[in-house]
Amino acid sequence: MKRRNLYLKTMAVEEALSKYMETLTTEGIIEKLRSRRETISTYDTLGRVTSEAVYAKCCSPLFNAAAMDGIAVKSADTRNASERKPLTLELNRDYIIVDTGDPVKSPFDAVIMAEDVMEVDDNHVMITESVPGWQHVRPIGEDIAAGEMILPSFHKIRPVDMGVLLAGGILEVAVVPKLSVGIIPTGTEIIKPYEEPKEGDIIDSNSGMFSAMAVENSCKPHIYDIVPDDSEAIKRAVLKASRENDIVLINAGSSAGTEDYTEPVLENLGSVIVHGVAMKPGKPVILAHACGKPVIGLPGYPVSAYLAFETFVLPVIKAINKETDVRTDIKKAILAKRVVSSLKHREYVRVKLGMVGGRMVASPLARGAGAAMSLVRADGFCIVPQASEGFEAGSEVEVKLIKSLEEIESTLVSIGSHDLILDEIGDMMASEYPGMAFSSTHVGSMAGLMALQRGETVIAPTHLLDMDTGEYNVSYLRNLFDIGEVVLIKGVERVQGIMVKKGNPLAIKTAEDLKRVRYVNRQRGAGTRVLLDYILKQKGVSPEEIDGYDKEVATHMAVAASVASGEVDAGMGVKSAANAMNLDFIEAGVEEYDFAIRKESLELPQVKAFLQLLESEEFHRKLDEMGGYGYSQAGKIVEL
Amino acid sequence: MKRRNLYLKTMAVEEALSKYMETLTTEGIIEKLRSRRETISTYDTLGRVTSEAVYAKCCSPLFNAAAMDGIAVKSADTRNASERKPLTLELNRDYIIVDTGDPVKSPFDAVIMAEDVMEVDDNHVMITESVPGWQHVRPIGEDIAAGEMILPSFHKIRPVDMGVLLAGGILEVAVVPKLSVGIIPTGTEIIKPYEEPKEGDIIDSNSGMFSAMAVENSCKPHIYDIVPDDSEAIKRAVLKASRENDIVLINAGSSAGTEDYTEPVLENLGSVIVHGVAMKPGKPVILAHACGKPVIGLPGYPVSAYLAFETFVLPVIKAINKETDVRTDIKKAILAKRVVSSLKHREYVRVKLGMVGGRMVASPLARGAGAAMSLVRADGFCIVPQASEGFEAGSEVEVKLIKSLEEIESTLVSIGSHDLILDEIGDMMASEYPGMAFSSTHVGSMAGLMALQRGETVIAPTHLLDMDTGEYNVSYLRNLFDIGEVVLIKGVERVQGIMVKKGNPLAIKTAEDLKRVRYVNRQRGAGTRVLLDYILKQKGVSPEEIDGYDKEVATHMAVAASVASGEVDAGMGVKSAANAMNLDFIEAGVEEYDFAIRKESLELPQVKAFLQLLESEEFHRKLDEMGGYGYSQAGKIVEL
Repeated sequence: MKRRNLYLKTMAVEEALSKYMETLTTEGIIEKLRSRRETISTYDTLGRVTSEAVYAKCCSPLFNAAAMDGIAVKSADTRNASERKPLTLELNRDYIIVDTGDPVKSPFDAVIMAEDVMEVDDNHVMITESVPGWQHVRPIGEDIAAGEMILPSFHKIRPVDMGVLLAGGILEVAVVPKLSVGIIPTGTEIIKPYEEPKEGDIIDSNSGMFSAMAVENSCKPHIYDIVPDDSEAIKRAVLKASRENDIVLINAGSSAGTEDYTEPVLENLGSVIVHGVAMKPGKPVILAHACGKPVIGLPGYPVSAYLAFETFVLPVIKAINKETDVRTDIKKAILAKRVVSSLKHREYVRVKLGMVGGRMVASPLARGAGAAMSLVRADGFCIVPQASEGFEAGSEVEVKLIKSLEEIESTLVSIGSHDLILDEIGDMMASEYPGMAFSSTHVGSMAGLMALQRGETVIAPTHLLDMDTGEYNVSYLRNLFDIGEVVLIKGVERVQGIMVKKGNPLAIKTAEDLKRVRYVNRQRGAGTRVLLDYILKQKGVSPEEIDGYDKEVATHMAVAASVASGEVDAGMGVKSAANAMNLDFIEAGVEEYDFAIRKESLELPQVKAFLQLLESEEFHRKLDEMGGYGYSQAGKIVEL
Repeated sequence: MKRRNLYLKTMAVEEALSKYMETLTTEGIIEKLRSRRETISTYDTLGRVTSEAVYAKCCSPLFNAAAMDGIAVKSADTRNASERKPLTLELNRDYIIVDTGDPVKSPFDAVIMAEDVMEVDDNHVMITESVPGWQHVRPIGEDIAAGEMILPSFHKIRPVDMGVLLAGGILEVAVVPKLSVGIIPTGTEIIKPYEEPKEGDIIDSNSGMFSAMAVENSCKPHIYDIVPDDSEAIKRAVLKASRENDIVLINAGSSAGTEDYTEPVLENLGSVIVHGVAMKPGKPVILAHACGKPVIGLPGYPVSAYLAFETFVLPVIKAINKETDVRTDIKKAILAKRVVSSLKHREYVRVKLGMVGGRMVASPLARGAGAAMSLVRADGFCIVPQASEGFEAGSEVEVKLIKSLEEIESTLVSIGSHDLILDEIGDMMASEYPGMAFSSTHVGSMAGLMALQRGETVIAPTHLLDMDTGEYNVSYLRNLFDIGEVVLIKGVERVQGIMVKKGNPLAIKTAEDLKRVRYVNRQRGAGTRVLLDYILKQKGVSPEEIDGYDKEVATHMAVAASVASGEVDAGMGVKSAANAMNLDFIEAGVEEYDFAIRKESLELPQVKAFLQLLESEEFHRKLDEMGGYGYSQAGKIVEL
């Protein structure tokens, strides 16, 4: 068996970061990168960092300027003007007309506003009050004085800064050059996104993500060709990239797996300071330097990669640019689902956030390091410290916000059963009601109703069949809630059935046929699984007789994908999912997919928008497109 | 006298904005700009907005993938393995070796972690526990299912989004094209920043600022040549710009001054919805449309221009991109200085912010619309509603933050006397102690000490001469504070004197000579003014005898600029300012420029950093460079 380094000792996050930053500092690596400068046109300086303080070349205003529209006069002459004894002034001899910003030159030394001047004729005006010297005159250099410091060093230039630079006569600025970041994807199984995947291939999506993160932080990224799992090749790539860039990132191949040469290569070319951090996701991080440059090995899983970049690469960039990590929006929220975490690492749990009954509720998303969509859907991070074993549902936790508080407050929170229409509703909501959002967490119908009970969601999509009565949803709600506490918003009728490969090669027609094929099920608590159990019970088929009854996936699309790939032969789900994946479909029945909601929530703006959406023509058109939906009752409120 | 439109009726800000947005909506202008799309490479989509929802092309993972490093086995085979009865497996027949991410293919259907496997020999391993099917296997499509919606429409793409797009097989994305913004500077007196200013010329700094604000908001700016004050020329410029851009901005020439043709031109080419807004700075704004495009006339003063862009142009951009204005950090602060505001407008007062004694203190900056440096120095805005006449010093106000709370909390607040060294200290502080900042407001020594009394500042720079004893600072502190309440941090000795033009053409030598020249003074309460009074008193010269004694400017550099320009012949100030402007200097005396501070503030990290800085070699070197400073006592603490 190939040798494996099983024991990757991990260091706590803060310790790893500070040890690394310290080493980069004492080795002079940061100072060397920090001390460069380039001179660019002021017009190109947005977002750039000054490498030295900037002093104004000229004054602003450049001359004594009128601060108002009116006339410029000699203040001494007006000494005796009054209401009882108005003073008449002659154009050019006693006054000139000025607009705001015009120069006020000797002998004139004060300005009277147009509103305070009475016109006598084309060449004469009258005033009724004396004016002090320099009234309504902006003296030369009032705003910016030549020689004055306009911007300090290591200041990130904003539009207002650009304005004063130009006003101060500065046409060029010495700035810190953008850091170049070399990105080396590694892995024999990795392919570029535009290549056709062979079996076992994994698309390199991280390089694109890293390059965008680099650009966001004013760096210039350079993505290199994919390097196979080969010591020599990796070494050559690191040498080249460190010559051509200021920072080098190596992606994947940093866990202690069989094909990981990154650490030995870096140990050979330079020095490895940290290998393995007590962080989840993100453990297999390498912090090193080689050829005088910081070299960081980042894990392959997208979420690990993202978090490792934020946690270790960003601080290096900011240290070189003398920036500090400032915007941290930390808020308190109630945790909707129990989070268990090991003491071995600090964990970054992605959460969705929403306001329910005035409190912020955090619903954990998929925990896997490969769950890139969890990053896309995340409203924030709940950080579980290494010393903590997690938090119980209902406990108050600290959440680092990704979305802003305002966005979260106008989000409609939905926890419960999954359907494809939820994505469409989310899309239409953001489109028709800018600022509003629809946030759905898929835990199955039962878990959704329990979340509604606990005040952790506003709406709970549900399609629970009462096995005794054959009725949907109402009886469950009556059991779980008091009279008048909740109502049911009618949603859609949707066709459920068995998805099979196009052409139905295994000729699956009935529940009996499921006994002879490979099946994939939905998770416990999912309405779809309840429906399957109902049908099996009716047909006298036992779950044990179905190969794959215990194999669970969480969404209709996952079922469809499983069938389409040939991994399994059949799975139950909605017709729209089968259509999306071009599968054949054996109809099993029509069910009612509705939304449970507390009565008082009907007043929320997000909910009103939601109801309007359910009743809209655009929504109905979309349902027709997707196939397998009826919407005659959509948006109606049913009291229990 | 030229005809003036004296009566610019102003509309309240919210009313003006909503009336304008409504018109742009009903005229279909926003919808037309919103409905365009372009297709770009996914790698270029950072910060771009999707024009339609994006659905995944392929799954992620693309196949059932091992979630751990270890071995892939047939789960059914392991059914009987236990501690008492370990199971031996043969390579290739019963298991294969997998790394995280490797495919797990039939007949294998589960993964055992490397740590749980005991090596027997090169071809055999042993396990002691059964494994369920699909253990440690990420099913196909677990993260992203083909056909699933990855991103909704009108979603601004972030790096994590780019990652999932690539993982989902999306190489191109339909996005909203960047809005093009045409910027037309107008005004016969306006010059480009690279031109030599003739008398009366004003540098066009706003175009650069607007273009940067446009880029910040994902727009493409285009700055046109300066258009003189001429109806036909402005009309041609608007026609061209509106043909070539999506939004047109016309700068300056929007007040009802004598040379303002913008409104009539826009009324002729299209429709003027609003002219004049009750906002200060920013009143002379024009909201119009012409040739099917939004056309906005922005005022000439930099601060007015900036605020008008933020208040009126930004919402139009965001409406077209269906973005909402989300990040608003509003905090409460105590106002350090009284703010008086008229009922005629909503006022945007720029403030500096700092923590003093646990409270956030807001110090208003220069109010003038031309005070571009107030925008650069501002930590936030205190918005005075139209209905309010202002706030008293000490009252609690709401402040919209520009800097972050963390930055404000690590800022050392200084209110008091001005010296050039304060800018250098600020620069060095940010440089040596990244994250820390030094924020100084110049109100003169006396006002600074009173701010210290009221708990509105941490340090108060002061150089107040006791006219009776000839001693600096200490006696004032003894009068204003109790024993032990405050201490004095020694600063620098600095040379004060009279600045005159190079060569001293008017042969100014003594206080008597000031009677025959034009003078410029400092403001009441400034230590420099106190010194002048002391000297005049000693020499028996009366203030009335000095022409310009009443002419006041606020800083040493402003005095120097005034003398250098020839506006005045003499003014008192520090030698470093004279050196900066290449003026001659008649020494009047050496004074002590120190910092008053409450004893308990000595413990603050910012203050400790400040003390270290005062004692540092780098600071002393800088002082030698500037000239006229002694630093033998710098950083020493003097108890009273």
